[in-house]
Amino acid sequence: MALIVQKYGGSSVEDTESLQRVAKRVAQTHKAGHQVVVVVSAMGDTTDDLLDMASSITPEAPKRELDILLSAGERISMALLAMAINEQNVPAMAYTGAQAGIRTDTRYGKASIVGMVPERVVRAINDGHVAIVAGFQGVNEYDDVTTLGRGGSDTTAVALASALHADVCEIYTDVDGLFTADPRIVPTARRVRTLDFEETLELAASGAKILHLRAVEFARRYHVPLHVRSSFSDLDGTWISHKPADASLRGIAPKEAFRSKEDNVEAPIISGIAHDRSQDKITLVGLPDEPGFAARVFEVLGEAEVNIDMIVQNVAVVHPGRSNITFTLPDADAAPAMKALQARADYLQYQEVVHNPAIGKLSLIGAGMKTSPGISAKFFSALYNAGINVDMISTSEVRISVVIHEDDLDDAVRAVHKAFDLDSDETEAVVYGGTGR
Amino acid sequence: MALIVQKYGGSSVEDTESLQRVAKRVAQTHKAGHQVVVVVSAMGDTTDDLLDMASSITPEAPKRELDILLSAGERISMALLAMAINEQNVPAMAYTGAQAGIRTDTRYGKASIVGMVPERVVRAINDGHVAIVAGFQGVNEYDDVTTLGRGGSDTTAVALASALHADVCEIYTDVDGLFTADPRIVPTARRVRTLDFEETLELAASGAKILHLRAVEFARRYHVPLHVRSSFSDLDGTWISHKPADASLRGIAPKEAFRSKEDNVEAPIISGIAHDRSQDKITLVGLPDEPGFAARVFEVLGEAEVNIDMIVQNVAVVHPGRSNITFTLPDADAAPAMKALQARADYLQYQEVVHNPAIGKLSLIGAGMKTSPGISAKFFSALYNAGINVDMISTSEVRISVVIHEDDLDDAVRAVHKAFDLDSDETEAVVYGGTGR
Repeated sequence: MALIVQKYGGSSVEDTESLQRVAKRVAQTHKAGHQVVVVVSAMGDTTDDLLDMASSITPEAPKRELDILLSAGERISMALLAMAINEQNVPAMAYTGAQAGIRTDTRYGKASIVGMVPERVVRAINDGHVAIVAGFQGVNEYDDVTTLGRGGSDTTAVALASALHADVCEIYTDVDGLFTADPRIVPTARRVRTLDFEETLELAASGAKILHLRAVEFARRYHVPLHVRSSFSDLDGTWISHKPADASLRGIAPKEAFRSKEDNVEAPIISGIAHDRSQDKITLVGLPDEPGFAARVFEVLGEAEVNIDMIVQNVAVVHPGRSNITFTLPDADAAPAMKALQARADYLQYQEVVHNPAIGKLSLIGAGMKTSPGISAKFFSALYNAGINVDMISTSEVRISVVIHEDDLDDAVRAVHKAFDLDSDETEAVVYGGTGR
Repeated sequence: MALIVQKYGGSSVEDTESLQRVAKRVAQTHKAGHQVVVVVSAMGDTTDDLLDMASSITPEAPKRELDILLSAGERISMALLAMAINEQNVPAMAYTGAQAGIRTDTRYGKASIVGMVPERVVRAINDGHVAIVAGFQGVNEYDDVTTLGRGGSDTTAVALASALHADVCEIYTDVDGLFTADPRIVPTARRVRTLDFEETLELAASGAKILHLRAVEFARRYHVPLHVRSSFSDLDGTWISHKPADASLRGIAPKEAFRSKEDNVEAPIISGIAHDRSQDKITLVGLPDEPGFAARVFEVLGEAEVNIDMIVQNVAVVHPGRSNITFTLPDADAAPAMKALQARADYLQYQEVVHNPAIGKLSLIGAGMKTSPGISAKFFSALYNAGINVDMISTSEVRISVVIHEDDLDDAVRAVHKAFDLDSDETEAVVYGGTGR
C-alpha cells in the first residue's frame, strides 16, 4: 500500500464528464489498495470566467476580494469530484485549502505556503476515505482565503505530498509527460522518461508550463518524487526525482524512478528545449553609471512585488557616464512594474523607460552542459543559420537561454531541436503547454 | 446615523450589471452617513446551475459536499459586490458565513443558526467599511460550511440585524413590498404599507415567497423591524414590526414603521391572500385506529427530517378500525418522506400510501379573523360559487387555509380576492413571487 497524491489540472477537469473520468481513475487507485489524496484545480474556463466578471466591474479589483472570487472555482470542482468518487462507491471527502491546513502569508494573489497542518486529510485517509483538496488556495493569519498564483495547484500537491510523506506525487495533465520540445512546434519531439530536479527546475524556469517552478523547487527541497503523466491514458509519463545516488541515499524515490533512471545513465547531456512567450522586456535607458543605481531599480521593483527573470546591464555608448538596464519579467507584472518605475523617476534618474511585450525566450537544458565544449557554439550557430537575431543571453550550469523576437520563436525552437539531433531515437528531454494553475 | 442591514436576493443580483446597480444603492446609503451591512444571495441562476452539475454526476449527492458546492455561489456574488462598491469609492469587505460568525448545527442543506459571533463585521463597520456577508451559509462545529435551506439569506440578514442591534433590516426584492395577492394573478392587487409579525408569519407560512417563514420568526423573536422593498425603485415598501403598543414599549422599531402603522389603525381585518404551489400531499390509508399510530407516523417523518405542514386525520369509513392520515409537505421533501414511510411499512401497519403532487394551498390572512363572524362563510361560499372543490382545511387565530387542486388555484385566488373587496382603495395586504434563498 502506497500513499499517492494526485493532482488534476484544469485540462483534466474540463466539465462534469471529465470529472467522472477522473473519479474512475481515483477510485481504481483506491481499490488497488492505496491511500489517495487528490488535489484539484478549477474546472475548464471557470477561472477565466470569474476574472471576466471581475474586470467587467472594475479595472483593478481589490486583491483580497479577488482571491475570494477565484477560490470559488476550486470549491465547485472539489465538491463535484467528491460526489463523482462517491458515485464510484469509494467514500470521498472534500476539503478547502483552509480545511486541509494550508497556511500562507498574506500576499493575496501570490501567497506563499508558510505551514502545513493537514490533520483532517490524515484523519480522512486513515478512515479509508479519499481526501480531495482544493488546489491553488490557502488561508492566512486573518482567516482569509489566499490564492497561490500561477502553478498554485502543483504547489499544493507537492506541499501535501511532502507533509504526508507520500510515496509519489502524480501530476496529471493532457500529455504523456515532458517532451524534448513542444510537439505542437516540433512534431518529432519525444517523451522524456526521467529527469532530475535540477534539469526540471531549469526547464520550469525557462517557460515549460506543465510543471511550475515553485512546485519543482518545493519537490526538490522536500524530496518529493514527481510523476508527470496524462489523465487521458494509463501510460507511464516522466519521472522526476533526485539523481540516483542522492535518491538512494535518501531512500524516498519510488522504484520505477530508479529503474528508468538507471536505464538512462548514458543519455546524452541535452535534455530538451523550452520556450516561453509569456514574458515582457523593460529597458531603463540612461541611468547614471554610478554604484547603487542598479540596486535602486531592483529595490523599486521589489517593493512593487514584481518578479524579474533575466537582467542585462551595459554602458551606454551614446551617453557617456550613463548605462542601460534591461530585464525580462512575466507579462502580468509589466503594468505594475512600469507604474512603479515611472512613479520613482526622480529617485532612479533614468532618461527613458521602454516596455517591449513582443519577446520570446528559448532555453536549451542539459546536465553538465558547461563542461561540454562546443554546445554553445552549436547553439548560437543554429540560431545564426536560421537568421535569428539574439537580444539577450543568460546561462547557468545546465542551461543557455536567449531572448529573441516573439515572431522568431517557433523557427528558433525547430532549428535548435534539429541541430542537437533531438529528433533521433536515443534522445530524451523536454517541454511545453499545460495549465496556468 | 443608523445601522442598516440590507439583503439582496437573486433577482436583485441577476448579473454583473445588477450588482453595479446594487452597489450604487449601498454606496448612497453609506454616503448618507449610515453604517451598512449587506447580505447577498448567489447571482441569478448560479444555484440552479450548480445543482444541475451535481445531478449530472449523481442522483443523490452527499449533503456535506452539496453544501460546499452551493456555498460557492455566494462567494462569487459577495466578492463581486465588494469590488463594485469599492468602485463607487466606498470601502467594502466581503465575509463568508464562517467569517461573519454564523455558527450553525450540522444539518447540511437545512442548518439552523445556533450562535452569532459577528466580530469581524463589527470591526469592519466601525472602521468605516461596508461589510458584505454571504447569505444562506454558516459554519458548523466541524468547521464545515453548511447552508440554511430555503429563505436562508433572509434568515442570515435578520440574524445579523439582531446580533448587531440594527435599526432596520431591509429585504430587497423585485417588487415594491407585499401585496394583497399575487399581481400576476390578480392585476388589481394593492401594496400593503404595514403588517405586524403575526400576520406576516401567517403569510409566510402560507406560501408567500417574498419573505421566508424562518426569517419572520427570527425577526419577531428578536424584535428586528423589517422593510420589504424593491431594489429597482426608491419607493417605500412594506414595513413589518411589532404592533405599535409592543413596539413602542420595546423602543426598537423605526419611526417610519410607527407612522405608517398609526395611519392604518382602522384598516380592514383582512390583510391578504397567499397561495402556494410548492407543496405535495401524502395520504396513509388504513392505519390501525389505535392510540400511538399517528405518533409513529410523525416519528418516522421526523427521523427523515421532513417538514410537515397541514395534517388531517379521519376514521376510515370503508375499513372499520382503520383511519387515514393526510398531510402536506414541501415538494422537495416528498421523495425522502415516501422512502421513509415505505421502509417502515411494518412498523406503521398502513394498507397503502399515496403521493399526490398536484395540489395548491390558498390562505386568507387577517388579524382577529376568528372573532369576526361571517368571514369563514364568505370565504367558503366564494370558493363554492367558483366551483372549487376543497380537499383539506386548516385554521389559526389569523388565517384560514384550504388545499385544493393545483389547477384551481388561480381561479380560487381571484374569487376570494373579489369576494373580500381587496381590489378596492381602502385595502392593504399581501403576497407573492420572489426568490428561493
